[in-house]
Amino acid sequence: MNQLDYITRQLSRAQKKRFENYVVTRIWHLLNDLELKFTTQQYVSRPEEIALTDMYFPQLGIHIEVDEPHHKNQINRDEIRELDIINATGHQVYRIDVSQDLITINHRIDEVIQIIITDKKNNLNFKPWDFEADYSSHTYIDKGFIDLTDDCAFRTMVDAANCFGHTYKPKGIWKGGVRHPKEEDTSIWFPKLYENNGWNNTISDDEDLITEISLNQEKIISHIERILAENRYKRIVFARVKSPLGDIMYRFKGVYELDLKASNKENGLVWRRISKQVKTYSNALFD
Amino acid sequence: MNQLDYITRQLSRAQKKRFENYVVTRIWHLLNDLELKFTTQQYVSRPEEIALTDMYFPQLGIHIEVDEPHHKNQINRDEIRELDIINATGHQVYRIDVSQDLITINHRIDEVIQIIITDKKNNLNFKPWDFEADYSSHTYIDKGFIDLTDDCAFRTMVDAANCFGHTYKPKGIWKGGVRHPKEEDTSIWFPKLYENNGWNNTISDDEDLITEISLNQEKIISHIERILAENRYKRIVFARVKSPLGDIMYRFKGVYELDLKASNKENGLVWRRISKQVKTYSNALFD
Repeated sequence: MNQLDYITRQLSRAQKKRFENYVVTRIWHLLNDLELKFTTQQYVSRPEEIALTDMYFPQLGIHIEVDEPHHKNQINRDEIRELDIINATGHQVYRIDVSQDLITINHRIDEVIQIIITDKKNNLNFKPWDFEADYSSHTYIDKGFIDLTDDCAFRTMVDAANCFGHTYKPKGIWKGGVRHPKEEDTSIWFPKLYENNGWNNTISDDEDLITEISLNQEKIISHIERILAENRYKRIVFARVKSPLGDIMYRFKGVYELDLKASNKENGLVWRRISKQVKTYSNALFD
Repeated sequence: MNQLDYITRQLSRAQKKRFENYVVTRIWHLLNDLELKFTTQQYVSRPEEIALTDMYFPQLGIHIEVDEPHHKNQINRDEIRELDIINATGHQVYRIDVSQDLITINHRIDEVIQIIITDKKNNLNFKPWDFEADYSSHTYIDKGFIDLTDDCAFRTMVDAANCFGHTYKPKGIWKGGVRHPKEEDTSIWFPKLYENNGWNNTISDDEDLITEISLNQEKIISHIERILAENRYKRIVFARVKSPLGDIMYRFKGVYELDLKASNKENGLVWRRISKQVKTYSNALFD
């Protein structure tokens, strides 16, 4: 997938929603700025709800919602647990009411475009969208860390794992995770944060807490015991998610630590987030 | 349907064709000119073929074709005989090759937009798109005539018939046509130019010839006899067509005259176009 594929696929997603298609394509074409990344139909977690926003500019934390009659934006979390849900606390949402006439709608779109342009200009940390760099280990190795605000999601487990001091082969795949090459107390974990294979994993709405519950309670105990034996109680989490375009991605969620007091047969393994940023390491070939 | 409905419906038609959706929405939003009428996925008849063009500007006679691999633009006429096919002889076609990269595609779209803007500026007969007037009898009564180049298609038979000196009730409907209120030798005809109800009607590619063939040859003779008895051998033709958006429309094709020599049991009724323009009359209420 190249940038053209990405953009055309994103813009053609509002297939049967002609007002959404009109608004999203108009904003994109009139902005006419390839430095701005966007997604369409992005699931977001906000303090009060899980919602779907029609257009999202991750570099600016700006969402566009097309308000039309019968447009349901509120979502049942259970239906979408395997999808990529980003935490949108503190983001700005701009609404476009398409029950107005054409001139009024176009005027409102122009206003929103001006807001986006101004926001970009005033954002001192703004980095132009680099399509390939978004998915490259080297981007984060060069940077020295991955932060939650980087909107970091890799296409493969290997791309994620290669940020931490080793070079795995391109086809590498792990069942759950892999040991951190440089930090003895840490694993790199690629959890499915939804029901799978006898495990019912969940993440809290604020994403501070991940819980792993197994139908087989003995498994919980053996997992805890192994973690204690290895003394590897920290996990860098890249959750396996389906992107808005339907591709599997591994999204950075932070560094989590096993909460031994809270974990038991009934509660399962409880992981608490201890950091929203993680250090990266130059990988072996370049050491 | 208002102008907003029209535009959003037109722009959302390339549902599963993301490159077409990209090109069509980009041209429209960057032109950003509500004086320009357009349709998408317009069937056109050209000297060498029937084709589907991706975007059409009727005021300028300009077509856009999105060239992508596996994009079939050539059409089997039989499959689409009830659709609205416009004669595109002499029109300009601009192609956009979407196998190029994003920057090249955007550059080509900019070029085409400049051509459209220049063409509009240089077109001394240019009339701004007036959405409601397009479908109003009064537009053509005030003008004094309907010409083939007016791209005239009405939403109802009554709107068409009311151009000729009478005021029919809004719900009026006729099986085939209605007598001209002012001209004794003329009918206003709303033919289906495709197989229907035991008749196989056709129109030639250059639209100069309409043929009505009945499976029941006696019907052909009785039709010819009635026309001769009434001495009403001219017909103003508004062909019943499905518009690109799927609505039924009555498209002006010209004035046709019965060719008595060519018409017979085997050949059917043969109508030859004698004019591409027809006089309109103020309707009764305003006389």
